[in-house]
Amino acid sequence: MIIAVKKQCEEKQFNNLIDWIKDLGLDVHVSHGDHSTVIGLIGDTSRVDIDLISTLDIVESVQRVQEPYKNANRKFHPLDTEVDISGHKIGGLNFQVIAGPCSVESEKQIIEVALAVKDAGATMLRGGAFKPRTSPYAFQGLKGSGIELLLKAKAETGLPIVTELTSVNYIDMFKDVDVIQVGARNMQNFELLKEVGKTGKPILLKRGLANTLQELLMSAEYIMAEGDCEVILCERGIRTFETMTRNTLDLSAVPVLKEKTHLPIIVDPSHATGNSRLVEPMSLAAVGAGADGLIIEVHNDPVHALCDGAQSLRPEQFKALMGKIGQMLPIVGRKFDN
Amino acid sequence: MIIAVKKQCEEKQFNNLIDWIKDLGLDVHVSHGDHSTVIGLIGDTSRVDIDLISTLDIVESVQRVQEPYKNANRKFHPLDTEVDISGHKIGGLNFQVIAGPCSVESEKQIIEVALAVKDAGATMLRGGAFKPRTSPYAFQGLKGSGIELLLKAKAETGLPIVTELTSVNYIDMFKDVDVIQVGARNMQNFELLKEVGKTGKPILLKRGLANTLQELLMSAEYIMAEGDCEVILCERGIRTFETMTRNTLDLSAVPVLKEKTHLPIIVDPSHATGNSRLVEPMSLAAVGAGADGLIIEVHNDPVHALCDGAQSLRPEQFKALMGKIGQMLPIVGRKFDN
Amino acid sequence: MIIAVKKQCEEKQFNNLIDWIKDLGLDVHVSHGDHSTVIGLIGDTSRVDIDLISTLDIVESVQRVQEPYKNANRKFHPLDTEVDISGHKIGGLNFQVIAGPCSVESEKQIIEVALAVKDAGATMLRGGAFKPRTSPYAFQGLKGSGIELLLKAKAETGLPIVTELTSVNYIDMFKDVDVIQVGARNMQNFELLKEVGKTGKPILLKRGLANTLQELLMSAEYIMAEGDCEVILCERGIRTFETMTRNTLDLSAVPVLKEKTHLPIIVDPSHATGNSRLVEPMSLAAVGAGADGLIIEVHNDPVHALCDGAQSLRPEQFKALMGKIGQMLPIVGRKFDN
Amino acid sequence: MIIAVKKQCEEKQFNNLIDWIKDLGLDVHVSHGDHSTVIGLIGDTSRVDIDLISTLDIVESVQRVQEPYKNANRKFHPLDTEVDISGHKIGGLNFQVIAGPCSVESEKQIIEVALAVKDAGATMLRGGAFKPRTSPYAFQGLKGSGIELLLKAKAETGLPIVTELTSVNYIDMFKDVDVIQVGARNMQNFELLKEVGKTGKPILLKRGLANTLQELLMSAEYIMAEGDCEVILCERGIRTFETMTRNTLDLSAVPVLKEKTHLPIIVDPSHATGNSRLVEPMSLAAVGAGADGLIIEVHNDPVHALCDGAQSLRPEQFKALMGKIGQMLPIVGRKFDN
Repeated sequence: MIIAVKKQCEEKQFNNLIDWIKDLGLDVHVSHGDHSTVIGLIGDTSRVDIDLISTLDIVESVQRVQEPYKNANRKFHPLDTEVDISGHKIGGLNFQVIAGPCSVESEKQIIEVALAVKDAGATMLRGGAFKPRTSPYAFQGLKGSGIELLLKAKAETGLPIVTELTSVNYIDMFKDVDVIQVGARNMQNFELLKEVGKTGKPILLKRGLANTLQELLMSAEYIMAEGDCEVILCERGIRTFETMTRNTLDLSAVPVLKEKTHLPIIVDPSHATGNSRLVEPMSLAAVGAGADGLIIEVHNDPVHALCDGAQSLRPEQFKALMGKIGQMLPIVGRKFDN
Repeated sequence: MIIAVKKQCEEKQFNNLIDWIKDLGLDVHVSHGDHSTVIGLIGDTSRVDIDLISTLDIVESVQRVQEPYKNANRKFHPLDTEVDISGHKIGGLNFQVIAGPCSVESEKQIIEVALAVKDAGATMLRGGAFKPRTSPYAFQGLKGSGIELLLKAKAETGLPIVTELTSVNYIDMFKDVDVIQVGARNMQNFELLKEVGKTGKPILLKRGLANTLQELLMSAEYIMAEGDCEVILCERGIRTFETMTRNTLDLSAVPVLKEKTHLPIIVDPSHATGNSRLVEPMSLAAVGAGADGLIIEVHNDPVHALCDGAQSLRPEQFKALMGKIGQMLPIVGRKFDN
Repeated sequence: MIIAVKKQCEEKQFNNLIDWIKDLGLDVHVSHGDHSTVIGLIGDTSRVDIDLISTLDIVESVQRVQEPYKNANRKFHPLDTEVDISGHKIGGLNFQVIAGPCSVESEKQIIEVALAVKDAGATMLRGGAFKPRTSPYAFQGLKGSGIELLLKAKAETGLPIVTELTSVNYIDMFKDVDVIQVGARNMQNFELLKEVGKTGKPILLKRGLANTLQELLMSAEYIMAEGDCEVILCERGIRTFETMTRNTLDLSAVPVLKEKTHLPIIVDPSHATGNSRLVEPMSLAAVGAGADGLIIEVHNDPVHALCDGAQSLRPEQFKALMGKIGQMLPIVGRKFDN
Repeated sequence: MIIAVKKQCEEKQFNNLIDWIKDLGLDVHVSHGDHSTVIGLIGDTSRVDIDLISTLDIVESVQRVQEPYKNANRKFHPLDTEVDISGHKIGGLNFQVIAGPCSVESEKQIIEVALAVKDAGATMLRGGAFKPRTSPYAFQGLKGSGIELLLKAKAETGLPIVTELTSVNYIDMFKDVDVIQVGARNMQNFELLKEVGKTGKPILLKRGLANTLQELLMSAEYIMAEGDCEVILCERGIRTFETMTRNTLDLSAVPVLKEKTHLPIIVDPSHATGNSRLVEPMSLAAVGAGADGLIIEVHNDPVHALCDGAQSLRPEQFKALMGKIGQMLPIVGRKFDN
């Protein structure tokens, strides 16, 4: 960490700052320039509060050189992490597609969709049992019985299941779930991050709508600090001024995260765009950007099917997309692991 | 709700849509134009999923006419809500200032600050016991013992206390807390909103960093849907591209919310700007914008005091600010209720 | 256009509004509901000022059904426009890559780069002669003599040239330029749009850093309203809160624009990311998203080459990328036109 | 400027970088740490291209210590600039209100509004003759004859006039205009900035919708680099995800700019909010934030008056607002200079 101190700083204030840094167990290297003095902090600065320092009156600016995350940092773990989910690997050269309906609605629905996506080449089943909804009056999911239906679909098809946990209260219901998803709105629900970190399961962590990539990595760090969880990061769109798409899918996040972390990164084109017509182009774009996988909504539901709409693909659309993905993977040096 | 349907829509799809709307218990009014057909939905549309409809293939665009919130809606409650906290009213003509340290650190600290802010005219004490921090390695608050120290300060000074709850797990510790705060990162932690809604206490709900005002009102609606909680809304800055302030304090939110809702709206200039030098101008700006109160960080802490810095005011700065606020209130038709 | 009028609207105000609409040459269709009255505007509403109406006291909300652009609208021109630049087509099934240095620096430099990018398969040469720079103290380009060097490179290689015009003052120097570029900062420099629209040349129009897709189409409309210019739209990143990339490349813009307009859409991964390591993944992502072409920075310049850095690719990196693009194009139903 | 270099940097690359910096006429101070090496640049770094350096492969991060602007920098000009416009000063302790219609429409209109705003205490008249409009089909202003009408209103009332220039082509028509306005969409139209900088007149420079405060200061620097223009900065709202206001008025910009620059800063609440009901609260908020003045839309126009709407105040509303501003000014240590 490098702190530039203002020219007109009083000696007493400057010495107070130096003493305070040393009290944190760090060494300092001071270099005096014409317009400002620069303090270099030597040691483990990951616990130093950069916000506090940056607002001190005598500080001109402050900048981290080391990243504030370690477990998630590629510098300390240069090799790609490959997360193994019931024999299906994600990360490294392996590309996975997770598919399924937005919400679990009935046994018939979830099993039919599971069979369809498996047939098309998906290796994991997604489906919401606990649904975070903006309105208290909207359908909030089948909850516990939704989890049971997912487990039936797993028994029927062999597909491991991925589903979202919205509160520490429900964690006991997730003991047979293969991958626990933490949703965008809970990316900085730190109490939830700590609890899922204790499960030892793989965690699918979605980026919040207004969170930086560094904050995403810090939230992964929260999970990993609890023990030996593996984290799969998920880009699902950020909030901008543009209104023609629900969110703005930030695909540059994929290659940037690949440099910063060893964890796998997948992309959710369904929620990002909110429009089924955009799912195919944005899925292929994600493959081109170097993603390790996709999570895609597929339905067979007559309400959603009403006018061929919403953000979910029909099974035949999904199958066609999987074909194109399969053609693209060798160009970017990847393969399906199924 | 008004749905504009594409010209080239097939009759079967159109009829499916009409039937689906009627199944929701709504009536329709169809009007055919040259370039599109418009469907007006008649009845209570607050439970209709606008996202679902907007992505249907045959839909050109869809627009709510009625707001999706009721308990929080000024249309149904034209008079200002005045929240009474131990005899101090907030809302209507009454202006309140909540002040205290960022974190509770010790009995001496919290009592000294409480006495200082009371002396300056604050009528409620703030202080963090559970601190949501971006880094798992940062100080996370004194937790339960922090709450106890706040209660001691309350006993000593008579000031009601406001403090943040970060997880449903800790709710039992909050039974003697006067106002429960839901922080920005938990604004859409819907499980937490439901739980605090059951307490019957006044809730201070902070706007999330990337949440619209409508979403803020929907989160208030979550709390109010559980029973008879009163909600105090708080603008504390949103995330934009500007980097010279920590967040961008959106003061237009104040008069806009005043039109949309009967709930009181306060402003947090300390967290929004992250810079103590900006607290006074932005506090006076909030008064000018018509806010019902302020929540301000004040410290007496030698670490923070190190270089006269961070986002907290010193007691004497706070007292000077309170004097200016007192001068301004009559101009905007307000008064301190203390 | 649909206007929802407030319940409590006075009859006189309502009638004023109706009269004002009729004075614009439009018909109205009024439908009375329980909570609001809806006015449908019938006729050509592209010249109606939606901002004015939305702020009228009696108006609840207002929504366009028709888009406010015509020449750029796919509804009125269902077939893809194919822009022909010296025999190279862009749009439809044809994919083009425009490449070259950020700035023209010398005859040797521009000719060497032109030969290199032609050899790799690029069909147009880019290079800045007039450089809009944030700082008045930064290098602003070779200006007129830069244009002359580009024309020499064109003579040498046969590559048509694309270069940016920053002021109506310089337009005479552009008479032999094949494609005039309007940069992101000038996307809403309406006087410049009108002037380039009079040239009859193909115009490469970059999206502004904070402009919506609808505004981009309105700026294309400005150019097209002047005569028979063809416009090539370019997504080059928008400004968000994320700081790990210079801008956030909004690739969803590509399939969304494909629905709204018949004009070709290309992507600039070099400026969007500001980082040469991200150019290859984001170029392949753009192909996957369905772009009609790319504009890529390539250098052979020892200053930029200093540490293999900046946002420009070296010729051999560009050649490798072109190979991968060539492999991907058939999967998305496209081909190079060279 | 401080450059942190990666640990694994090769000696040859490092030496190349050092040589390149020295070629720019700067000295370096190198300090080696455990995890990275830090290079301090000594000398005038305002012309160093930070973007270029930050993308070099061997660079971990780079940070300016000195600001890249000089003429606009308070460090070099500690005293407030007071811009004198026909005897009315803006800046320092002086507060000014500029008022008038959105567009000049007729001699009767502009003179009536001018008389009304003068009567209420405004000391300058605004009015658009050249109107930058998103749509090519919208009214673009009376242009040259609009300027003539403004000059008639000036002759009638003695009020100096402020009006927007949209292209270098029209600059000759502005020779009798008192203050030339550069609009938000032209904030980075650098060719226009240079031309207005040559006029020697005071320039009112509006912040772009997605421009940082540093970029605003750099644009002021462009103008000031041409000669002896004085620049009045204007905050008029930035673009965010919030849709209940047209833009998000960033009032923190006012105290932040006050620290960074000696130039006066005014606020435009009319364009920022797009809603006349928000003009009074946001004007008072701007006074509280420490602004040096306001620019407010006032109309007497039956079309705008249609339903008491749009973003303009009626003369009696404006007069009431001026009364409240007058009461507030002493609290923030300011006074009207009229």
